[in-house]
Amino acid sequence: MTTTAEPPSERIRVRRKADRARYDEPTVHAILDAAFVAHVGFVTEHGPCVLPMAFARVEDHLYLHGAAGNAMLRSLDDADVCVTVTLLDGLVLSRSAFHHSMNYRSVVVLGRASVVSDDDEKDRGLRAVVDHMVAGRSRECRPPTAEELRATRVVRVPLAEASAKVRTGPPIEDPADLDPVEWWGGVIPLTTTLGAPVPDAYVT
Amino acid sequence: MTTTAEPPSERIRVRRKADRARYDEPTVHAILDAAFVAHVGFVTEHGPCVLPMAFARVEDHLYLHGAAGNAMLRSLDDADVCVTVTLLDGLVLSRSAFHHSMNYRSVVVLGRASVVSDDDEKDRGLRAVVDHMVAGRSRECRPPTAEELRATRVVRVPLAEASAKVRTGPPIEDPADLDPVEWWGGVIPLTTTLGAPVPDAYVT
Repeated sequence: MTTTAEPPSERIRVRRKADRARYDEPTVHAILDAAFVAHVGFVTEHGPCVLPMAFARVEDHLYLHGAAGNAMLRSLDDADVCVTVTLLDGLVLSRSAFHHSMNYRSVVVLGRASVVSDDDEKDRGLRAVVDHMVAGRSRECRPPTAEELRATRVVRVPLAEASAKVRTGPPIEDPADLDPVEWWGGVIPLTTTLGAPVPDAYVT
Repeated sequence: MTTTAEPPSERIRVRRKADRARYDEPTVHAILDAAFVAHVGFVTEHGPCVLPMAFARVEDHLYLHGAAGNAMLRSLDDADVCVTVTLLDGLVLSRSAFHHSMNYRSVVVLGRASVVSDDDEKDRGLRAVVDHMVAGRSRECRPPTAEELRATRVVRVPLAEASAKVRTGPPIEDPADLDPVEWWGGVIPLTTTLGAPVPDAYVT
């Protein structure tokens, strides 16, 4: 990843609406860190498959995890993946049906996934996934036992090829649709909010 | 799609946590209809690719759209795709790092996409995408011109092979982690809210 406006590879270059592309590390990292779920794409014998997964970023890698018995996760070892993260910020209502849009921040990561075999890295990746949900939570719960660690597979994806795409602001309008202005136009903001924690039956 | 608990095909069967699987049409449709963005996976010469896209459901098909010049969208004609939609409902904090989870509703659709050539169906698909953002909006904006329609490509994906997966409720706990209860456990709800519409500079 570069801190300039140039894509790190040709295949990761944003092709549609290239003016919305961002390739700088702070933008890419901020979007990844603000999302709870990634959509992970890979190729199976049945064709493309996309599954939502919890994840976390540690420096310039993403970490995914799942059950050791998970055949899908095992198949990701040394496999090409596409990890996509999307944050929706608003519905953009233009005067024309044609210019309706959304405000969003998204990241697409292309890379080769690999199963983490080093125990320290595995531990770091798993902690990061828990801390990505609630900062510091990995120190405020029971750490995994050796058996739980054996039952868990951790997969790493490098962030070397990543692009972000960001749309902000009001709708695009054709001049003819503003003379006269016949319809309402603007943005309906979309916000994702964390509610008050709901304790379970064992909290006294 | 069936209204029973059986998957419509073997390849769409939910394999992990199969007790969370739902194959009935009302559940699948409700999740699709409640989401603004789908993550569309397809295979390119560079491997798997996942892009966030606006979409809408009309009966038992999904409709995607984009610029006619969009090479990606053109490549989806007669191509296998996986369309995945995820709604996040909560962060599930267990006493153990191992049992941390999320509450969610997701749908995975496997199918063969095709470019819509029929003008009436294209119009219906495009209206549905606009109305999926705000109900009735397609009648409250300027409809597409013939030129705009030519500049737009619409792609259809059948819902014949779809599965939903739903997790609700409190964390899973191992009995040993409740004797004694040492950590907080429960759910942090996640809610996505539409804010008050923000008019643009041309609304008087």
